[in-house]
Amino acid sequence: MKLMRVGAPGAERPVLRTDDERHLDLTPVTADIDGAFLAGGGVERVRAAHAAGELPDVDIAGQRVGAPIARPGAVLCIGQNYAAHAAESGSAPPSVPILFYKGSNTVVGPYDEVAIPRTSVKTDWEVELGVVIGRTASYLDSPEQALACVAGYAVSNDVSERAFQNEQSGGQWSKGKSCATFNPLGPWLVTADEVGDPQQLGLRSYVNDEPRQDSSTADMIFTVGYLVWHLSQYLVLEPGDLINTGTPQGVALSGRFPYLAAGDTMRLSIDGLGEQRQLLINA
Amino acid sequence: MKLMRVGAPGAERPVLRTDDERHLDLTPVTADIDGAFLAGGGVERVRAAHAAGELPDVDIAGQRVGAPIARPGAVLCIGQNYAAHAAESGSAPPSVPILFYKGSNTVVGPYDEVAIPRTSVKTDWEVELGVVIGRTASYLDSPEQALACVAGYAVSNDVSERAFQNEQSGGQWSKGKSCATFNPLGPWLVTADEVGDPQQLGLRSYVNDEPRQDSSTADMIFTVGYLVWHLSQYLVLEPGDLINTGTPQGVALSGRFPYLAAGDTMRLSIDGLGEQRQLLINA
Repeated sequence: MKLMRVGAPGAERPVLRTDDERHLDLTPVTADIDGAFLAGGGVERVRAAHAAGELPDVDIAGQRVGAPIARPGAVLCIGQNYAAHAAESGSAPPSVPILFYKGSNTVVGPYDEVAIPRTSVKTDWEVELGVVIGRTASYLDSPEQALACVAGYAVSNDVSERAFQNEQSGGQWSKGKSCATFNPLGPWLVTADEVGDPQQLGLRSYVNDEPRQDSSTADMIFTVGYLVWHLSQYLVLEPGDLINTGTPQGVALSGRFPYLAAGDTMRLSIDGLGEQRQLLINA
Repeated sequence: MKLMRVGAPGAERPVLRTDDERHLDLTPVTADIDGAFLAGGGVERVRAAHAAGELPDVDIAGQRVGAPIARPGAVLCIGQNYAAHAAESGSAPPSVPILFYKGSNTVVGPYDEVAIPRTSVKTDWEVELGVVIGRTASYLDSPEQALACVAGYAVSNDVSERAFQNEQSGGQWSKGKSCATFNPLGPWLVTADEVGDPQQLGLRSYVNDEPRQDSSTADMIFTVGYLVWHLSQYLVLEPGDLINTGTPQGVALSGRFPYLAAGDTMRLSIDGLGEQRQLLINA
């Protein structure tokens, strides 16, 4: 299933997008797509209500699409999880998952404007497979058990300011990852059962409709299951948390493309997860 | 004023601790000490209600003390903000504030047990001045304006696992900072007006009552006002956010003291902000 949130920022309403591209109101089932919904059997309740014909059609034309999940308790990011991107960043492939956080107030809708920070000179794009946690994960036994903790997947843009990230924080990356609007997410949360194998998804990005990234989650160094299992050995993943699983090669940091400027557009897509698009503006 | 939260985890109730060490029930004024309370003039409402004698006494004897603020939207940490600690960590003093995040689900009460992670061999203490944000801060004009965004201060223990931090995440520190129970906070949120100058506070830590850290916030490289101003140039600080402003010399990472083991106790205090104490257990 594809779950969405539609409406003004902070006032989004939950919507089901059906296989025949209709939109159904989910407010009879839940007030929001959040950790409590995901952990409390919400996806199964939606499935049952839809099967029973209990969900009314809703017209979302002209309305803003929000991120498909409520603000996460944490946005966890994995660095350099594609070997070719590690190389273009000047690094060897990591032997262990690299974890950093972004501020969770960076998450915005898939078509919202992205603001270039005032002193930015190196704002960059990163298409990533976003993993949304569905149940609490702590000291899991195996990557297989870990996959059962995943509620679903979404297109995630881990927007990055490379000077802030690499030159203005003593080597700790979060300062270049946490600027306002730096995590467009969506349009949909696609449930794990519909996605199937998360390691067989093509993912692409474009700037002003010119291709930038074009890869596959098959090229991840650490798989989704491994990452969730690994992180659970260190910290507690909570329902509704977002994990950005790393970006493939083809970002501006490589030197092959210019950084972003106001007026540019980013477009990102992942097989089965839909497409997002943002206009760059100046903060 | 000194604000507290008392009760079981997730069910804390707000309490005012008076200058004569009585405890008054704050539930007539607010359901919690959170971002909405701090941003919405809550401190002033408490002051008025107390002056009017409207707050009933409450007996907190035998009850758990929680963190003095509800779970923050973000826990932002500043690295190596005391020159002598940078030196004992093998680093030169930073020329710019080093930002990293811890997961906000690490925040626990000041007397709660701290769990040594299962594979940990290097669990360490860090006494820090915790800064709680009282109003949204973005692109502030000056450090002076920034101080007006601070609601208050609390003792914060930025518990750290040094192998996870420095050896198991490609140089990004958060993996060693975000383990469950790794941020005891409190006992009190002391309002900014009561603290006055945040750069004149002695801060100390002890392990099994033996002294470890003994320094002053006067030795910070970047002051509280500078840090809040600086961070606001990069990201949006929100009411209820916690900033851990860095730790002084005297941690186990220095090689001068052993790392923590189950059965040890940590004790941390800051002038005017009270004392916290935790027993180490195995996760």
